[in-house]
Amino acid sequence: MMTDKIAEALNAAVDEGFDAQVGLTADLVRFPSTRGNEATAQDFMADQMRRRDLSVDRFLIDLDEIRHLPGFSPAHVNYDNAWNVVGTYRAETPRGRSVILNGHIDVVPAGPLDMWTTPPFEPRIDGDWLFGRGGGDMKAGQVACLAALDAIGRAGFRPTADIIVQSVVEEECTGNGALACLARGYRADAVLIPEPLHDCLIRAQLGVIWFRVTVRGVPVHASDATTGANAIDAAYGVMQALRGLEARWNDNKADHAHYRDVDHPINLNVGRIEGGDWASSVPAWCSFEVRVAIYPGQSIAAAKREIEETVLDAARGNAFLRNSPPEVTYHGFEAEGYVLTDAQEPVGVLAGAHRAVFGTELEEVSSTATTDARFFGLYGGMPALVYGPVADSIHGFDERVSLPSLRKITKAMTLFIADWCGLEPAS
Amino acid sequence: MMTDKIAEALNAAVDEGFDAQVGLTADLVRFPSTRGNEATAQDFMADQMRRRDLSVDRFLIDLDEIRHLPGFSPAHVNYDNAWNVVGTYRAETPRGRSVILNGHIDVVPAGPLDMWTTPPFEPRIDGDWLFGRGGGDMKAGQVACLAALDAIGRAGFRPTADIIVQSVVEEECTGNGALACLARGYRADAVLIPEPLHDCLIRAQLGVIWFRVTVRGVPVHASDATTGANAIDAAYGVMQALRGLEARWNDNKADHAHYRDVDHPINLNVGRIEGGDWASSVPAWCSFEVRVAIYPGQSIAAAKREIEETVLDAARGNAFLRNSPPEVTYHGFEAEGYVLTDAQEPVGVLAGAHRAVFGTELEEVSSTATTDARFFGLYGGMPALVYGPVADSIHGFDERVSLPSLRKITKAMTLFIADWCGLEPAS
Repeated sequence: MMTDKIAEALNAAVDEGFDAQVGLTADLVRFPSTRGNEATAQDFMADQMRRRDLSVDRFLIDLDEIRHLPGFSPAHVNYDNAWNVVGTYRAETPRGRSVILNGHIDVVPAGPLDMWTTPPFEPRIDGDWLFGRGGGDMKAGQVACLAALDAIGRAGFRPTADIIVQSVVEEECTGNGALACLARGYRADAVLIPEPLHDCLIRAQLGVIWFRVTVRGVPVHASDATTGANAIDAAYGVMQALRGLEARWNDNKADHAHYRDVDHPINLNVGRIEGGDWASSVPAWCSFEVRVAIYPGQSIAAAKREIEETVLDAARGNAFLRNSPPEVTYHGFEAEGYVLTDAQEPVGVLAGAHRAVFGTELEEVSSTATTDARFFGLYGGMPALVYGPVADSIHGFDERVSLPSLRKITKAMTLFIADWCGLEPAS
Repeated sequence: MMTDKIAEALNAAVDEGFDAQVGLTADLVRFPSTRGNEATAQDFMADQMRRRDLSVDRFLIDLDEIRHLPGFSPAHVNYDNAWNVVGTYRAETPRGRSVILNGHIDVVPAGPLDMWTTPPFEPRIDGDWLFGRGGGDMKAGQVACLAALDAIGRAGFRPTADIIVQSVVEEECTGNGALACLARGYRADAVLIPEPLHDCLIRAQLGVIWFRVTVRGVPVHASDATTGANAIDAAYGVMQALRGLEARWNDNKADHAHYRDVDHPINLNVGRIEGGDWASSVPAWCSFEVRVAIYPGQSIAAAKREIEETVLDAARGNAFLRNSPPEVTYHGFEAEGYVLTDAQEPVGVLAGAHRAVFGTELEEVSSTATTDARFFGLYGGMPALVYGPVADSIHGFDERVSLPSLRKITKAMTLFIADWCGLEPAS
């Protein structure tokens, strides 16, 4: 255990660097690193790692190296610019416990710009909040990893175990960025992922499946619409059946220890739709994209079968779809749920750090989302702790992260690293 | 009245030219003249008119010249390539009745190509049918106008009244092409439009309104979907309310003489939809496009009010939409219905021509669609006869026109022109 004096010095060092940390976060938010457009933000991360004397490994995701691995999700986008960046601090004489600090650089689309108070990729500070797409989810956390290392150095120390800082792509759609890091051989005694968790620790997270339903119709002139089959109308029938599946899965929550007390754990979201070509033609096609959660332990294959049966059942009730059933395809997440187990040691250290900074016990939550933690925990044998700042409106408009929370989380992360990895005076 | 001998000669001339007519129809189908892409097909039409010594007037639609006119529909596409082509035969010593032969060059989108047996813009003849997008609606009719003139010449005659052949754009979305011809001053004693009418004449046609409904939502992370407002789900609620409006309007059909015996005259079609950006974000927007019919005599302004009230009523039942009501905009057709009146004379001549060719009485129909006839009839004081061949699957896949029907329709058109305009031996 580190002394109170060291902890005080580290906290002071975080405070001292906090303005610079917020500035760096804003710089990172300025990169519109939506899917396919992450590369320049990753160049920035690589540069920041180099400035801190981390050993930088910048590599493209190679699908051939990961498609056979457990946890892989099918990707229907091109990976020509899907760069991961890993910066490693290698201790001179390692004697503590190593850690991976993992964050994702990709952000979700901003949506209609007119619904933002100020542009999504022009970061803005207003009171306690930093606004901008990706500020919360999760560029504040990514910069906090670097800021924690800065604070240790500023206080005159260096860690006595290896620290691997990973900035990955693809967290928001497949997780293949984190999987590629795993496939490349990165291992540590624990993993810390500062996702925006409202100062809490994730104990359990759900799995997620993405699928696309493509419905066909019989196009005729709109003046004769009753003789055709409207694919848009039919698509809604299928959606309603899927809402029934969502309700049934929620009804099962009592079977899942970590979710029986969660209100509506399983969320099915129709997030995109597109159909038809012409107002006066009965539409011949409609396709919509769905995100649905599954419980830890729920089999992805079985869940897919249930999804497909639900779609086919709905089709049987439709005169045209009966003979031309909709097609279900998978275009992203095939993520298992994950429960943090065999992690008393790192959770104990994090709880201590949290208590020292916040003055309260570390609260654990069952998340209704997924995170990249599953790769480390399920397929890498590494306990993966997801813990991070208060944020609001992630995936929404005027996304924002709380700066007072970020400051404390950075302190807790710094203390965690100090305790977990050990420190020695910088020579 | 022309003699049986002349009629026989004209019929024989149509037969003689029919292979060439079908070939020319196929050539015209090859142009993918969807909205915005009509110009090259119009060049082809202009060339065909010139070869027939028609005086060619090729002009762009100028919105400033038509936007104040009755019958104008708002256009939300650019008109940079919206060329009309008019070819006029001016009789040396006019003594008959003049005619406008009008057709539209624009075709609706083909939809998913994999649902076509052969590609939509590669015309194919199989048995009695010519297949291809636009073959029925209405390139066969357009070429029939030229073929009728060819037959008259081939039989050794020339008309003794002016004949104006119009190839217009924009019939499928606004009618502004026909309106521009009217604004340019073209007038005649009757109008014939060979739309694919299954060997019948339109006595009444409905009006059509296009509108777009844009629904907003509250985007949140899909894992927390119940705290957001899903714009795609909400859009469906609005659609259902609009189905109620459709039912109410259909319930009123007894008030409309020409439609009281028509099954389901008013068709409301949701023809396009688009919404959301990301499967894992609750969608913040969804917009869909609707085509709905109105009765002849039903006011467009009143119909729009009913549409808007229906949308607002639906919004009142939705917690989020109540305070953020959907937006209704108009992006195409604002077309009144039209009943063919004061047309005993041209209808009598057409009925005679039809009887001579088909051996049956000319059947009259109340169409559930609109055509450009409304401009001539309502705003130009010209009786506009819509009469044309059998076609199948217009606005659908494997659109096709019946060649035996086309041959007879061409003969009936030729006899109509001969009788209406009068003929004299070509010098």
